[in-house]
Amino acid sequence: MQQLSMVDIDNIAHGAGILGTGGGGDPYIGRMLLAEEYRRGSVATLMDPDEVADDDLVVASAFMGAPSVVMERIPSGDEAVEALRVLERHLGRTVTAIVPMECGGLNSMIPLLVAAKTGIPIVDADGMGRAFPELQMETFGVYGVSGSPIAICDDRGHSVLVDTGADNLSMERHARGVAIRMGGVAYIAEYPMSGSDLKRTAIPRTLTLARSLGKAVTQAKSSGRSPLQAVIDSCTTSIYGHARLLLEGKVVDVARATSGGFVRGTAEIRAFDDSRSVELSFQNEHLIAKEGDTVLAIVPDLISVLDTETGLAINTESLRFGQRVQVIGIATPSIMRTPEALDVFGPSAFGVEEPWVPLENILVAGAVHRDA
Amino acid sequence: MQQLSMVDIDNIAHGAGILGTGGGGDPYIGRMLLAEEYRRGSVATLMDPDEVADDDLVVASAFMGAPSVVMERIPSGDEAVEALRVLERHLGRTVTAIVPMECGGLNSMIPLLVAAKTGIPIVDADGMGRAFPELQMETFGVYGVSGSPIAICDDRGHSVLVDTGADNLSMERHARGVAIRMGGVAYIAEYPMSGSDLKRTAIPRTLTLARSLGKAVTQAKSSGRSPLQAVIDSCTTSIYGHARLLLEGKVVDVARATSGGFVRGTAEIRAFDDSRSVELSFQNEHLIAKEGDTVLAIVPDLISVLDTETGLAINTESLRFGQRVQVIGIATPSIMRTPEALDVFGPSAFGVEEPWVPLENILVAGAVHRDA
Repeated sequence: MQQLSMVDIDNIAHGAGILGTGGGGDPYIGRMLLAEEYRRGSVATLMDPDEVADDDLVVASAFMGAPSVVMERIPSGDEAVEALRVLERHLGRTVTAIVPMECGGLNSMIPLLVAAKTGIPIVDADGMGRAFPELQMETFGVYGVSGSPIAICDDRGHSVLVDTGADNLSMERHARGVAIRMGGVAYIAEYPMSGSDLKRTAIPRTLTLARSLGKAVTQAKSSGRSPLQAVIDSCTTSIYGHARLLLEGKVVDVARATSGGFVRGTAEIRAFDDSRSVELSFQNEHLIAKEGDTVLAIVPDLISVLDTETGLAINTESLRFGQRVQVIGIATPSIMRTPEALDVFGPSAFGVEEPWVPLENILVAGAVHRDA
Repeated sequence: MQQLSMVDIDNIAHGAGILGTGGGGDPYIGRMLLAEEYRRGSVATLMDPDEVADDDLVVASAFMGAPSVVMERIPSGDEAVEALRVLERHLGRTVTAIVPMECGGLNSMIPLLVAAKTGIPIVDADGMGRAFPELQMETFGVYGVSGSPIAICDDRGHSVLVDTGADNLSMERHARGVAIRMGGVAYIAEYPMSGSDLKRTAIPRTLTLARSLGKAVTQAKSSGRSPLQAVIDSCTTSIYGHARLLLEGKVVDVARATSGGFVRGTAEIRAFDDSRSVELSFQNEHLIAKEGDTVLAIVPDLISVLDTETGLAINTESLRFGQRVQVIGIATPSIMRTPEALDVFGPSAFGVEEPWVPLENILVAGAVHRDA
């Protein structure tokens, strides 16, 4: 167990931006809410997966909905706590540990906020290893944990509990409908599981990965080194194992629409000398990076867009014409690459036709591999 | 307490067709399910409101959704029992009495089916005194009972619990979204209340009114008397107090569409001698009957269309060109006519511009009043 400082929170927020792979919402809103909570004397306690007891009751915490709506309708932080309490009352049991649904984007911060507000420890792990747009896209579910019952709360004190048994796709469908009717964003607690199930199904130590990513970028900047290389190095030494630059250039086109509760669109990044052009397609998060017909990286591997100067991630909401960026690919851990996992969050789960190819196996003449 | 016979059930089904005021679903599907249950030896027990103890836990039972979908996707009857059980588990209390959400249409039968299947007595009362299309349109809610928490179940074993506190409009909105995503129909248990609240807010003895309506029609037919006059007499001697023939003629036009989870449309009935024409507008149930610009009857008063030969009600789903019909108006009890009640289910609640006028105060030259 360790108490996280506000410096830790800042670093996690920066790193979660990168792991958000374009989505998961802007972590900085959550960081602001945590700063306020820390000023009141609250502290979030991080728990290593090895410290989780087999009979702990662990619940995954998150917001759901379109990140664009969260940015217009900033939460108080009590919504996600209320979701936890509603689920506790429904189960008739006390939650002993919180785990993030996803380690990327705002959803790295929401469970930390719940941890700070309630004093319940947060496990250093998550169920996505990045950000994904749908609730069934969890390693918890891939390896047999039911998302149900899920508690869904809004900022008006309304709550909804959905129980679809082991059918996590139906759980997502109903919860999505509720979130849309709640105004496009809602706060959830779900995947109630034992500590032993958590340890079996979660992607371990992703909060500390986010923290080391954020810390590496900050330190590189202050010492005049390349933030990009720091990011690649941090990923390479983690269970993710591999990261590479796909293209450096500027944003020349962005098409984006909010529909069905998601932000969908494409962005084109062109090299400064016009020699290359990469198209990114996203559904909240980036799904595929293509150079012409050539796939450079594809979901569930991560695609992130970094500001060239600062090394900070730019999410799909914030992409703008003219931004100077580095597009990077990050490989996923092996627990996210099994056939069962690819069924749930591989390319076909998003309607992407191209088959999945491990990032590290893609050999592209133009793609610069800087971790050598 | 009295055990209802299958003859009682048949009579209630007939009467509920009339009180369904065109909607609430076809009671005959529910009657079939009850007949099957009775063949297995089950019996529904009817409880007078005076027999309800102040500390009873009473829960309202119903299906929700488009009646047209129920007719295509016949329930097993277990869905509504499951909703009751899900609500019981959530509340951590045992339900001691069931009350129908509405006494009209199929929703007279669903709670009787739950009563027969579970052995829990059903209170001779309801919260609509007819059928209405939305869940907040309950005298329970009008007089301060929360619809929340509501349990919503489908035929796939999925369940959703919605809790919007005292906000019954939001409860309806979320539950409707869930029912649509469940395929257009769902089975619910809601308005958990004490026996004393039930006695304060329910419309009493509406199941026995339905039974006497059904019995009167059957007896009139077998003795060669007018079923219409039997219906008018039964209403006149109940707390409803007044009923009248609005027009006898044939159906010459029907426009109907299923949208947003409801069946909406209009029907035109023309007198056999073409001297008069009445237009009915409906949202599941009939809302208003107009002859040109003249209102003949308007919600919450009841408008029902009876088959001229049989005296049986024809619901808005079954209206067809060429049917020979009697359009009748039935006044509502005073508990449904207070300003609070009209706010919730008066004309403006349906977007109907015309103000409410008590049926018995409407003087129309052409409207024949046969109860003299």
